[in-house]
Amino acid sequence: MYTCDKSRLEGTVNEFSSFGSTPNKGVTRLCFSQEDIEVRNYFKNCCEELGLDVVWDDMGNMYATLAGKKDIPPIVIGSHLDSVEKGGRFDGVLGVLTGLEVVKTLIDHKEEQIAPIVVMNFTNEEGARFDPAMMSSGVLANKFEKEKMLQSTDKNGMTFKEALEASGFAGHKANRLKQASAYLELHIEQGPVLESEKLEIGVVEGVLGMVCYEITITGESNHAGTTPMQLRKDPFFLATDLISAMRRELSKIDDALVFTMGRVTVTPNIHTVIPDKVVFTLEARHQDPAKIREVEEVIFDLPKEENGCKVSFEKLWSRDTVEFNEAICQHIQHACEEYNYSSKRMYSGAGHDAQFMASYIPSAMIFVPSVNGKSHCEEELTSFEDCAKGANVLLRTVLALQKSISKQELKTL
Amino acid sequence: MYTCDKSRLEGTVNEFSSFGSTPNKGVTRLCFSQEDIEVRNYFKNCCEELGLDVVWDDMGNMYATLAGKKDIPPIVIGSHLDSVEKGGRFDGVLGVLTGLEVVKTLIDHKEEQIAPIVVMNFTNEEGARFDPAMMSSGVLANKFEKEKMLQSTDKNGMTFKEALEASGFAGHKANRLKQASAYLELHIEQGPVLESEKLEIGVVEGVLGMVCYEITITGESNHAGTTPMQLRKDPFFLATDLISAMRRELSKIDDALVFTMGRVTVTPNIHTVIPDKVVFTLEARHQDPAKIREVEEVIFDLPKEENGCKVSFEKLWSRDTVEFNEAICQHIQHACEEYNYSSKRMYSGAGHDAQFMASYIPSAMIFVPSVNGKSHCEEELTSFEDCAKGANVLLRTVLALQKSISKQELKTL
Repeated sequence: MYTCDKSRLEGTVNEFSSFGSTPNKGVTRLCFSQEDIEVRNYFKNCCEELGLDVVWDDMGNMYATLAGKKDIPPIVIGSHLDSVEKGGRFDGVLGVLTGLEVVKTLIDHKEEQIAPIVVMNFTNEEGARFDPAMMSSGVLANKFEKEKMLQSTDKNGMTFKEALEASGFAGHKANRLKQASAYLELHIEQGPVLESEKLEIGVVEGVLGMVCYEITITGESNHAGTTPMQLRKDPFFLATDLISAMRRELSKIDDALVFTMGRVTVTPNIHTVIPDKVVFTLEARHQDPAKIREVEEVIFDLPKEENGCKVSFEKLWSRDTVEFNEAICQHIQHACEEYNYSSKRMYSGAGHDAQFMASYIPSAMIFVPSVNGKSHCEEELTSFEDCAKGANVLLRTVLALQKSISKQELKTL
Repeated sequence: MYTCDKSRLEGTVNEFSSFGSTPNKGVTRLCFSQEDIEVRNYFKNCCEELGLDVVWDDMGNMYATLAGKKDIPPIVIGSHLDSVEKGGRFDGVLGVLTGLEVVKTLIDHKEEQIAPIVVMNFTNEEGARFDPAMMSSGVLANKFEKEKMLQSTDKNGMTFKEALEASGFAGHKANRLKQASAYLELHIEQGPVLESEKLEIGVVEGVLGMVCYEITITGESNHAGTTPMQLRKDPFFLATDLISAMRRELSKIDDALVFTMGRVTVTPNIHTVIPDKVVFTLEARHQDPAKIREVEEVIFDLPKEENGCKVSFEKLWSRDTVEFNEAICQHIQHACEEYNYSSKRMYSGAGHDAQFMASYIPSAMIFVPSVNGKSHCEEELTSFEDCAKGANVLLRTVLALQKSISKQELKTL
């Protein structure tokens, strides 16, 4: 049973990380920045050197196709080459480059496959320059309106449309991925679970549903020195009380529930002034929609008024849990077993292009461990040992899928 | 027993509030701004028209003197004409203008007094343009170094020295107030106590001691979707726990203790990211230094480390309680009784020039009620009824002080 080439993969990842590299081993490769355009052209050249056919669609999504014996729907391996500001060397790009490594390995072994294999680079997955994240997979899956997306504007006032056209990667709509037998995405976990459980591979069954609320507590600002405690309407004190109570309730819902109060704004935020307003977010994720509803109940149960302060809340957004394709998950799991890699079934807490692709293509993801669970920062790290294991699982999954496609093709003869 | 002229006082306050007036009945009169320079010149003209001698010292503090029968240390009535950005029409200016009203009333009644009466305008009490607050009374009282103060810089890079020299109010050091038989300052309460207890006058015995700490909790930032709860080091969750516990302890110390957590900064403050740092201030005020020490004990008792987060604190500043002159407080209290005004002894939670003057001149303050306890905002309000009552108490206190000076003068003959 052959494997991918670990040192070749390491070399490729290092080459690609030179585009937009930051002093502390990270990368800044915002969508359609000079660095992103350069890495796209480099990716195109690498693929063409391997004899792949490279095209791009009207959102700039790139498709590098290794022809199959038959002109049937391909197996697609994809992720993204763009990064956040001062992001890591692995997030996104590893999914594209392990795809490329799988193709190289198949070419090395001169094994022509029945179905074409497409390695994809999705445009603007991060949404770091142009909101929203996963913009182009969203357009492919009809989750986002293309015309709206084209008007998304960066902080300097440039629209996505302008950046797309200037990049040289505005292609034909006809090139969009319309059907495929499978969509596979390898990604760093971006969390500490695999590392803390000493596991090598995550078999990703889906993407957690989530909900994000903004909670506002309005009190009354007054002089910190002259207002007796019993005459205060201090929204920050009420906020800490309510947050403690909410956390107690949220903790009871389910051990797998994650919840975060990440954004907290206190107004006017002066040490000698009692605040008049506190705004904080509560975002929670869980696989089971019923648990998400329980989170919402905790918010709905907040008092409307307490200690002279008013409490209100607003739902900022939510997403339903996405379930990946079970057959593909089983292929991934078998691949782990074949290589004797330790693995676990898990859900992704973060969003990925795969969650949109799954709406019209059988999809699944493969996670590799993140050191200290870090991502979106220069310290982001996955050992090349683990990267190569991920590539092997990807390779074996592709081969298994080809085999089952072969069988089906035989049946249809 | 004669009184001040309520409608004249109302007219004067309205005239003065036209300098730097804001759309919502407030004023913006930052130290040595065009508006501040104009109101100073207007004040000078008003005083000179009354026959007062007006000089200013090397910090720009203005002194308008009504001569007495004898050239002995004066009775000084002072406060400040500068305001914060979008401040109110009463804070500071009311103390100067009730002083002026007292002088006008004495002139009306052709009652020549034994000691001169000085109406003072302190430069830069608010510290809103040039840090620190109470800058010039601090220099007079040797609490602040003049050379350092001259280098204080506004947000546009202009030094206090440059602004002082450009204002036309850089006078001689020889004009500084060196001795006086009393310093009186009438001020709006800036708190809700008098209003909520339906009282007309506050007899201010001193200024509360205070302490301000900054508390820092450092945890670890991670992805909100991918990090299980038990693997988090969330400093905001620890902060809310510690704040709740601290508040329970602080509430036990004393009913008169006031404490505020007014400034709270959460980093990086993104809804989808677990924070890595929370910094918040705790400032507390009480008359009794022992109670302030108890507040500090609560801070010292914070755990150094908890839930994987580090806790540290830093003292930003403190001030000792200032006790005013009891004899003058008694004169103020008698004045209230003479007019049948309801009153209470109280401490000022806010800082005032009087707290520095008290270090070398027998001093006390008179508070008038603040509607809703508001100050430093456009809604700041004290009824002219209450302003006039304050002026009457100030008048009667000055007369009582003159009387006791007379007696002493007779004794020394």
